Amino acid sequence: MSKRVGEGTVELTSRPRVAAWSSTVGKKEREGPLGISFDFTLGDDLLGQKTWELAEAAMLRDTVCRCMDKAGLEPEDADVLLSGDLINQIMAAHFCARELRVPMLGLYSACSTMSEALAIGGMLVDSGAARRAVCAVSSHFSTAERQFRTPLEQGGQRPASAQWTVTGAGATLLCGKDYAPDNAETVVSMRYATIGRVIDYAIKDMSNMGAVMAPAAADTLERHLLDIGRAADDYDEIITGDLGKVGRDLLLELLKEKGVKVDRNRVWDCGASIFSPEQDAHAGGSGCGCSAAVLNGHILGRLMKGEARRVVFMATGALLSATSVLQGETIPGVAHLVVLERDGE
Amino acid sequence: MSKRVGEGTVELTSRPRVAAWSSTVGKKEREGPLGISFDFTLGDDLLGQKTWELAEAAMLRDTVCRCMDKAGLEPEDADVLLSGDLINQIMAAHFCARELRVPMLGLYSACSTMSEALAIGGMLVDSGAARRAVCAVSSHFSTAERQFRTPLEQGGQRPASAQWTVTGAGATLLCGKDYAPDNAETVVSMRYATIGRVIDYAIKDMSNMGAVMAPAAADTLERHLLDIGRAADDYDEIITGDLGKVGRDLLLELLKEKGVKVDRNRVWDCGASIFSPEQDAHAGGSGCGCSAAVLNGHILGRLMKGEARRVVFMATGALLSATSVLQGETIPGVAHLVVLERDGE
Repeated sequence: MSKRVGEGTVELTSRPRVAAWSSTVGKKEREGPLGISFDFTLGDDLLGQKTWELAEAAMLRDTVCRCMDKAGLEPEDADVLLSGDLINQIMAAHFCARELRVPMLGLYSACSTMSEALAIGGMLVDSGAARRAVCAVSSHFSTAERQFRTPLEQGGQRPASAQWTVTGAGATLLCGKDYAPDNAETVVSMRYATIGRVIDYAIKDMSNMGAVMAPAAADTLERHLLDIGRAADDYDEIITGDLGKVGRDLLLELLKEKGVKVDRNRVWDCGASIFSPEQDAHAGGSGCGCSAAVLNGHILGRLMKGEARRVVFMATGALLSATSVLQGETIPGVAHLVVLERDGE
Repeated sequence: MSKRVGEGTVELTSRPRVAAWSSTVGKKEREGPLGISFDFTLGDDLLGQKTWELAEAAMLRDTVCRCMDKAGLEPEDADVLLSGDLINQIMAAHFCARELRVPMLGLYSACSTMSEALAIGGMLVDSGAARRAVCAVSSHFSTAERQFRTPLEQGGQRPASAQWTVTGAGATLLCGKDYAPDNAETVVSMRYATIGRVIDYAIKDMSNMGAVMAPAAADTLERHLLDIGRAADDYDEIITGDLGKVGRDLLLELLKEKGVKVDRNRVWDCGASIFSPEQDAHAGGSGCGCSAAVLNGHILGRLMKGEARRVVFMATGALLSATSVLQGETIPGVAHLVVLERDGE
């Protein structure tokens, strides 16, 4: 049963269990500093499909299937699939879902979609509306570049604040207490969710997504801490989605302005961590597959081993389309937040 | 507290209240057979904005505000806004939300987005995760034509199975029992939700959306009736989103094949009803604003007056993008279903 805490946070009192997770990435991501934490690496970025879009759908589907398989379950053992991606009309998610006989809720909050899916999935499991919910999102470098930026063949110069869309997918299976498989190690659960507000700081530069998303991240984190009466440092780690190096610094600055005290060493960003400086990804990785893969590899792995015990996972999204940018609109951001904790915290 | 019934239906045992609703349409929709049921008609389809996309966002925002105002509330009295539209990256919903200080969940299931929003919103209210949830979606003829079809200036010939994207928006405010405003007449509540599966009958003709969506509608309705042990005729009306004339006939045929008995006079479609034959809209209206406006005008109006007492509202979506169609992909469909009932049913 869910309980509202403060103005805008939901406590999931039954603490939905993380019963399984899986991640898939491309070759470049595998070669990065977090490489060994991912389950599966694509041999090539087409996966034998005729288009990048179908390849992304196949990567997402395979990631869902591997996640369910790790729990000893079939995809249809989930009551609901919560899924989205960056392709127009979230076609990767829909093409993934048409091959799985699982009821699907289609979501979109740009690169914040993984935490949006976890927040809704967690709430549905908490209330008993779903026994098992699988949350899965993806992004693909080539589908995103084609859609949002310039043809790859053009080889345009990228500014230093630009980020590199991650080819990757992540899936997390959330289960009600009585519905986790017997063999699953379920010491990690979801305890809180704070839904983000859409915040617009009037930024128009689509090569500086970090600046777009940092204000939304600061807003959600501040609201969350006020709601539940915790200090930022009550968390071992505060993990953002894909602010990148530029956005992470801005977030720290905004938190300081708001009077939110935080040990900066506890704040790290999936996008700023997935590539090494030598990989020429400028400000870091982006795409909803970035935080999804890092969550379902590195982060959950460390929580499970007890290397972190209580973390904020807050993916961040820049809300734009190719049309909105061409029409000269500013770019709002959003950040949804969930709290993952080991039992006993 | 939510209760699962059968394989895939959720019973909302607290029966979230419909506390207010509002609809906005364009001039053509106002001139149709349901014209008088809509709250507000646009003077022109640009609403004083410089682009159709901004006009759609403004229409959606105004509809949310009017809905909240009818309940004597401000937009920020809602704990969450569940919203989506047809524009790439659901930019109408995001631009609407940046002006409202309400946490937002972005959704996309094409023209099924209104019932997706109601299903999730209802579940969140039922569990106590939200006290008040406002569900709002939109579509706009000119933004959809530009994005999915051909430039309006081209004046292409439309086949008889084609539908006409409705310029319209609808918003519904769902409240927990203790959170409906005192003056609101809340005799209508949401009792069940059945999330749809993505169904692909391998249709490639984007001018025949009815045929794409009918199999998904038949699947969801059949599952719902099996789950809760009701016959189709236990409902006064079974209302689909925008199957249009072609899709409605196919749905009846598919239900017959499946052995689902239904009085065909009880099955009607928002898309097939919003325009008269003289309005040259061929197979009917479409767009997520179509079923959203009809729900938040005609349907809820009749439920409130007792002209219908227990109905299925099942919006239907065709899952395609301009890219997926150009790449020769087939078009899957989806249909989410909610049950609205007057107290005492």
